[in-house]
Amino acid sequence: MKIGILGYGNLGRGVECAIKQNKDAELVAVFTRRAPETVKILTPGVPVVKADDINDWKDKIDVLIICGGSATDLPKMTPEYVKNFNVIDSFDTHAKIPTHFANVDKAAKETGHIALISAGWDPGMFSLNRLYANSILPVGNDYTFWGKGVSQGHSDAIRRIEGVKDGKQYTIPVPEALEKVRNCENPTLTTRQKHTRECFVVAEEGADLAKIENEIKTMPNYFDEYDTTVHFITEEELKRDHAGIPHGGFVFRSGKLGWDNENNAIIEYSLKLDSNPEFTSLVLVAYARALDRLKKEGVTGCKTVFDIAPAYLSPLSADEIRAHLL
Amino acid sequence: MKIGILGYGNLGRGVECAIKQNKDAELVAVFTRRAPETVKILTPGVPVVKADDINDWKDKIDVLIICGGSATDLPKMTPEYVKNFNVIDSFDTHAKIPTHFANVDKAAKETGHIALISAGWDPGMFSLNRLYANSILPVGNDYTFWGKGVSQGHSDAIRRIEGVKDGKQYTIPVPEALEKVRNCENPTLTTRQKHTRECFVVAEEGADLAKIENEIKTMPNYFDEYDTTVHFITEEELKRDHAGIPHGGFVFRSGKLGWDNENNAIIEYSLKLDSNPEFTSLVLVAYARALDRLKKEGVTGCKTVFDIAPAYLSPLSADEIRAHLL
Repeated sequence: MKIGILGYGNLGRGVECAIKQNKDAELVAVFTRRAPETVKILTPGVPVVKADDINDWKDKIDVLIICGGSATDLPKMTPEYVKNFNVIDSFDTHAKIPTHFANVDKAAKETGHIALISAGWDPGMFSLNRLYANSILPVGNDYTFWGKGVSQGHSDAIRRIEGVKDGKQYTIPVPEALEKVRNCENPTLTTRQKHTRECFVVAEEGADLAKIENEIKTMPNYFDEYDTTVHFITEEELKRDHAGIPHGGFVFRSGKLGWDNENNAIIEYSLKLDSNPEFTSLVLVAYARALDRLKKEGVTGCKTVFDIAPAYLSPLSADEIRAHLL
Repeated sequence: MKIGILGYGNLGRGVECAIKQNKDAELVAVFTRRAPETVKILTPGVPVVKADDINDWKDKIDVLIICGGSATDLPKMTPEYVKNFNVIDSFDTHAKIPTHFANVDKAAKETGHIALISAGWDPGMFSLNRLYANSILPVGNDYTFWGKGVSQGHSDAIRRIEGVKDGKQYTIPVPEALEKVRNCENPTLTTRQKHTRECFVVAEEGADLAKIENEIKTMPNYFDEYDTTVHFITEEELKRDHAGIPHGGFVFRSGKLGWDNENNAIIEYSLKLDSNPEFTSLVLVAYARALDRLKKEGVTGCKTVFDIAPAYLSPLSADEIRAHLL
């Protein structure tokens, strides 16, 4: 399958790495809104093209992977580009998924294309696990924990504070909460009881550290409902110890079995990722394979991970997966 | 959906409990090869019927759940009953799945029915996780661990030894092996390094305990490649402490991310089940829902969990799952 990448930040570069690992995928072009000559990619011989010229590539690309932000890029880009391409995105604003789905579905059906939105790990693999586990265990409780990992949104919030030069925020699940869930205690957990937040902050010279720390800890929506730790470190320490973008998390379904719900069952799914965007990219490429196949079967419209039979994700044949993975 | 249960052992009773938890499922009849008047079921008002008379119920059942053993029952029963019913089974002899699939597929297509084989947790949910994780992480290693839980086959093997009155065998993953896998060490593990086996044995009066212990520990295929512990206990202790049928396990994919595979990613899926058959039954009923829907769309032939889009498993609508679970 021939793949195009639209947008070349952390996610776009991740998709490029993911294509290298998937032998049936070929990177055809990278499209950028920046000046193409300023964008250096990793794959030899592949052109970097102005996003404005993307329609010249309509017949050369099986699936276009749109690597934009969920806040403002994807709500416009995905319904627009699906008019000329089969597309996939990682739209992750959970509350706005129904609207985004409706917009993409309409444009895809009108033009005879196929799209898949909200692929990645949450939404994505975590969603799949919530759906499977809820379908299997109708009586029970769901728990999702995130981390330990870097939250981009919270790191950005820190950096907007006066006197802060740079910063990184880690979201960390509370170990006692994880244990209670694993022990089938079905706890009711407050926001504070589920996660803690740890911040590594580089302050401007002469900045008021106590004021910065207080501003972080009391910031509404982002930090005020959490137990937050703030460490002031040097720029060198931040670069040396916090350059990565790790993430991960846990999805649990704690359910009941038996005639009178007398038995317990726990389903636990977890991810531990050195690189959040590189893993998300691998999910995108696996679902691009599914889209390419479904398109060839004549399927159009917008899909989510819920609509894709697992066999479509594998490069192996149906016979092979039954023989080796079932 | 109207469900029939064929076979009323631990699994059949589990399916009955699972139907009670699923509000859109109705138990229509239980079919048995025993004398029906000797079989007491839990659901009031539902008939127990001779298996010989099952064809009288052809038009009254949407999905027949076949609760037979994989060794001799299911290879005959599933291809036979699919001639008159839409059927689902939990066939778990991994090596014989391709043959079983071919037999069921042929009979299902010839008669216009739909079937799903090998549902449960392994094969079943564990298989799904192997497929998803392999599709997402092409570079990596798979690990499956079982337990802690009761192995029926190994318990049966113990009970066949001369001088043994009763016994239960637990399969236990080796904690150090789990930790190495979780730490992305990608270990090569021998059979002995992955699992230990623990046996609780009730001996006949006057039996030679040392001889029994030695026979267990050196039994080819079952125990000789494992570190095995044997405890002799009384019949009362066995009943009091080992009456349950718990099981569970872990599926890992330890993969690589990045341009030069320089980053790690671990996907871990685990189950901890107080009752193995009751959980398997809930998986069967969720897939019965999918079959019932697919049949109404005109789909026929044999399927596995790999062929079923996750949305088909949920009693919720597509809009609801996108809004609440994605």
